[in-house]
Amino acid sequence: MQDNPAVLISEVGPRDGLQSVDSVMPTEHKLRWIDALHAAGLREIEVASFVPAKLLPQMADAAAVVRHAITLPGLTVMALVPNLRGAQAALAAGVHKLTIPCSASAAHSLANVRMTRKQMIATVREIVALRNDIAPRVRIEAGISTAFGCTIQGEVPEDDVVWMAAQAIAAGAEEAGLSDTTGMANPAQVRRLFNRVRAEIGERTGAAHMHNTRGLGLANCLAAYDVGVRTFDASLGGLGGCPYAPGASGNVVTEDLVFMFEAMGLSTGVDLEKLIAARAPLQAGLPGEPVYGMVPQAGLPPGWKQSAGVAA
Amino acid sequence: MQDNPAVLISEVGPRDGLQSVDSVMPTEHKLRWIDALHAAGLREIEVASFVPAKLLPQMADAAAVVRHAITLPGLTVMALVPNLRGAQAALAAGVHKLTIPCSASAAHSLANVRMTRKQMIATVREIVALRNDIAPRVRIEAGISTAFGCTIQGEVPEDDVVWMAAQAIAAGAEEAGLSDTTGMANPAQVRRLFNRVRAEIGERTGAAHMHNTRGLGLANCLAAYDVGVRTFDASLGGLGGCPYAPGASGNVVTEDLVFMFEAMGLSTGVDLEKLIAARAPLQAGLPGEPVYGMVPQAGLPPGWKQSAGVAA
Repeated sequence: MQDNPAVLISEVGPRDGLQSVDSVMPTEHKLRWIDALHAAGLREIEVASFVPAKLLPQMADAAAVVRHAITLPGLTVMALVPNLRGAQAALAAGVHKLTIPCSASAAHSLANVRMTRKQMIATVREIVALRNDIAPRVRIEAGISTAFGCTIQGEVPEDDVVWMAAQAIAAGAEEAGLSDTTGMANPAQVRRLFNRVRAEIGERTGAAHMHNTRGLGLANCLAAYDVGVRTFDASLGGLGGCPYAPGASGNVVTEDLVFMFEAMGLSTGVDLEKLIAARAPLQAGLPGEPVYGMVPQAGLPPGWKQSAGVAA
Repeated sequence: MQDNPAVLISEVGPRDGLQSVDSVMPTEHKLRWIDALHAAGLREIEVASFVPAKLLPQMADAAAVVRHAITLPGLTVMALVPNLRGAQAALAAGVHKLTIPCSASAAHSLANVRMTRKQMIATVREIVALRNDIAPRVRIEAGISTAFGCTIQGEVPEDDVVWMAAQAIAAGAEEAGLSDTTGMANPAQVRRLFNRVRAEIGERTGAAHMHNTRGLGLANCLAAYDVGVRTFDASLGGLGGCPYAPGASGNVVTEDLVFMFEAMGLSTGVDLEKLIAARAPLQAGLPGEPVYGMVPQAGLPPGWKQSAGVAA
């Protein structure tokens, strides 16, 4: 494995993907899939969401999944937590990093977590205090959702996004990333908004979480790279991400994203052939669920050579 | 219609799309489809390929299609011609612009047109002389194919691409564009190569013809836009472009490309809703043929507003 890949691919399939499908992947399949993702060279995986099992039965085994994932060498194990109770459980299980969803859209915040944006920032502050007490080495990222538009309120003012990111950092989060929750971002907006957020919070600017709902996922990741973003969320097989229509994937497909960066000569640390092989345990654990990806369909180009630094 | 859209979308479906599928679209359906594309605001359409009907029965009605298309107001009617005989027929039918495929790959040139690259440049020179004699207002573009890689010979040296573009211009073509015939381009390469070609032939640098074989079509168009390209080939429904695998589309999808630029605030002159409606005559003329496109699947975002300058 290369020590310093040019970009960090943060795999969100086991959390974002699995919580978006109706079927529940059995725990042993989850562990096999996470092992395969790690074997392909992924070094940051969002493995679970700590929410009540009655709300999301797909995530009922979150603690068991985390306890397995933290045994994998060199892996940063992330979990999503929407509140203090979730954070307590995630920290008890031993995660390395927490991600907290913070909507920039006032309407989406109320609909998604039943809190105003200010209440959500207060929640970040509580989680930071808990972390400082019991697990000071754990990092906290705020994921600023609906940053590029909201299906409920429509346009989300850019000032609101910048304000929300700054508030999350002021509340003690180490990073704030921007999420195109609704698949409404375009490359010009991605460049403008990441530049504005970076002007406000500098190197605490976190990941780009782009969706491919309208086909712009990779173009938006390229745009984010152009303005200095170096961490990108993606989901194996494009699983999850609230697709709007059958066949319209939501999340950016990890395989296609890794291909784009590697083809550009930017190392990801991920072995594409092993990554494509990691679709097998995903499909075994979710029989019948559609998976996406242009590179897996078309195959790697003849004579394909990856950049140096692929996982050994 | 806006007089000066920010980018020109050059629709290649009626030529590149139709010649890639096995079924033959009846002439009256072609004319209805081209009418719908024109009604959506497209102002450059590659309507046919002038090749022997026994090689490409899909194009047997090329002259009839051209004769209809040139009656549509404001439309630049293009045809592909691989040789002098094709150029004679296309000029006799009344086209406004010829495109001549010129492979940068030595191996692809022999396989595709049974000519060396130098023989192909001699062909360009012959076609230019004919044009100068009988139709001096017709423009000629050389499409430098396999510019980003070749499935037969593998890597195509960038020097060869720049040389081929310069030779085509020296032979009298007005423009030379770059085609990712094999779906092997990446955004870094697109920027580098278009910059090199522009350094050589300046404002005679023509269209970017990108494929979406491995999902990078829109990212590559964005990259080309970033380095000054303003004309982009695309195909309605992603029809054609030598797909490598079922479900893996070849050509960039016109609907998604128009969406990307319009969302960025760059006018295309194309009305997206009318463009999506133009899928109906395409599908009526080619029943059972799959069409692609993320925007048509997901729908336009809530509150979608296009830039000024959409076709009236």
